Amino acid sequence: MKANDPKTLANQFIDACREEVAGLPERPKVLGLIASEDAPSLAYARATQQRFFDAGLDYDLQQVSRLELEQAILVANDDPSIHGIFIYFPIFGNQQDDYLRNLVSYSKDVEAGSQYWTRKLYANDRFAVAGDLTKKALLPCTPLAIIKLLSHLGVYQESIAAGERPLTGKTVTIFNRSEVIGRPLAVMMSNEGARVYSFDEFGPLQFDLAKPSETHITRGQALAESNIIITGVPSSKFPCVTPGEISADSVCVNFSSYDNFDPSVAHHASIYLPRIGPMTVAMCLRNALRLYQNFHADSS
Amino acid sequence: MKANDPKTLANQFIDACREEVAGLPERPKVLGLIASEDAPSLAYARATQQRFFDAGLDYDLQQVSRLELEQAILVANDDPSIHGIFIYFPIFGNQQDDYLRNLVSYSKDVEAGSQYWTRKLYANDRFAVAGDLTKKALLPCTPLAIIKLLSHLGVYQESIAAGERPLTGKTVTIFNRSEVIGRPLAVMMSNEGARVYSFDEFGPLQFDLAKPSETHITRGQALAESNIIITGVPSSKFPCVTPGEISADSVCVNFSSYDNFDPSVAHHASIYLPRIGPMTVAMCLRNALRLYQNFHADSS
Repeated sequence: MKANDPKTLANQFIDACREEVAGLPERPKVLGLIASEDAPSLAYARATQQRFFDAGLDYDLQQVSRLELEQAILVANDDPSIHGIFIYFPIFGNQQDDYLRNLVSYSKDVEAGSQYWTRKLYANDRFAVAGDLTKKALLPCTPLAIIKLLSHLGVYQESIAAGERPLTGKTVTIFNRSEVIGRPLAVMMSNEGARVYSFDEFGPLQFDLAKPSETHITRGQALAESNIIITGVPSSKFPCVTPGEISADSVCVNFSSYDNFDPSVAHHASIYLPRIGPMTVAMCLRNALRLYQNFHADSS
Repeated sequence: MKANDPKTLANQFIDACREEVAGLPERPKVLGLIASEDAPSLAYARATQQRFFDAGLDYDLQQVSRLELEQAILVANDDPSIHGIFIYFPIFGNQQDDYLRNLVSYSKDVEAGSQYWTRKLYANDRFAVAGDLTKKALLPCTPLAIIKLLSHLGVYQESIAAGERPLTGKTVTIFNRSEVIGRPLAVMMSNEGARVYSFDEFGPLQFDLAKPSETHITRGQALAESNIIITGVPSSKFPCVTPGEISADSVCVNFSSYDNFDPSVAHHASIYLPRIGPMTVAMCLRNALRLYQNFHADSS
């Protein structure tokens, strides 16, 4: 039986990254930019820095004011010694965060949250650069972390026969349809064959084979039907998912910093992951290596 | 005395556009995309279409579902017969609207609301294409409409000696710091010499010469100091600006579809514009012509 723990799996990915880094001509360097003086945020930033060190990468953690961040991104975009940029969001907590996210050069976007990579995903374009089949596109780190966790836990197999879709016949409900996590995740899981019900505060959409359609399904219906339930609502006002709403063999994953499941779900669901934290950083490491190989290795 | 009416000024701009179009080898064509079946929204869309017709442009108004819009934008981006794209926002009312806004090719972005143009503005880069001094950058249509209205009303002069800034010594308060209207407007007016207090729901920022800085100024202090007050809060919950909060010679402009000023402000302010509507469309016309000249005229 596999460890039901994101940290164990994250460490496996970090080990694999370290081996890969050992074979490179130089240590890829990532710049982390944090615009916060809040102690827990800084502690989190230093912990992510340590993960990058563990994998053998350089990681320069720079503290800036929120109003200096725009300029810091532009400088890092132009600095050839920096191969990846990682920003600790939220900054302003509004539309300006998307502006900043899209300001990061796609060739240094470790989180793969900028429009360049989102667009590749929605267009089902698997290559980083048009016409070059050797360079794979990046996937956004949090959705990727969730999919790798589910795969590792045996919820579905990634490696099956060509043309088959490992989530065929499965139903998934996701509470969150942000452009950075919820919508990419709905697209990715529906591309794997699942029917995905995607909820945000304005209501549901249904995704089949990466295509959204309108639906009037209720939260209750969607939860009762679902094999996999994923929550990411950054609010204490979200009514927690309760054991009575879900089926006993369902898999439950929360990626919000708030608990979006009632803790008693742990005793009812077949698998319950209340946090995915370390896996997201592991996927950022993976993306940092891919960026280095795609865009920076030749110029060094 | 000049007409205190956005419609009169808008008509002057439309007349000027018509003269310019008459000298072109073809009629520039704009595609309007509306994802609404709401009667007032459709009536508004047909009214904007008529403004484009009045100026001598072609304007194809296409009704799509919100889930078809992404594909419609991609098709229009690739269609050489379409020179400009105009989208009736809001669509989803969330982050996905920014994704769609940024999906429009910058060479067809009539509203100039995509990141390409915003970035040019924030970088004070006045040219549409790097290295080509003949092609002027576009400015976002609503901020531009407000500035043209203020200029027309004599609040400040656009044409003054080189190096002078026409709003030097003026204080401006703007309620709205969206990436599409409020922040560009703060940057533009502070670039003209004003000190701008920019408020959103998270608090104020101060802009001087296009640079933001932190401030603890209150709404009351900012309003009392301001020569120009501009509101654009899309909510009935915003406490309306009252005559008691403003000085008697102030200029008040509302661009929200809600009344953000108490109507009695009309009797206290030196100028009160409760709506700017037709000027925004006039600026879109101006942008459509500039796009045609910058990116499409040579290929026809």
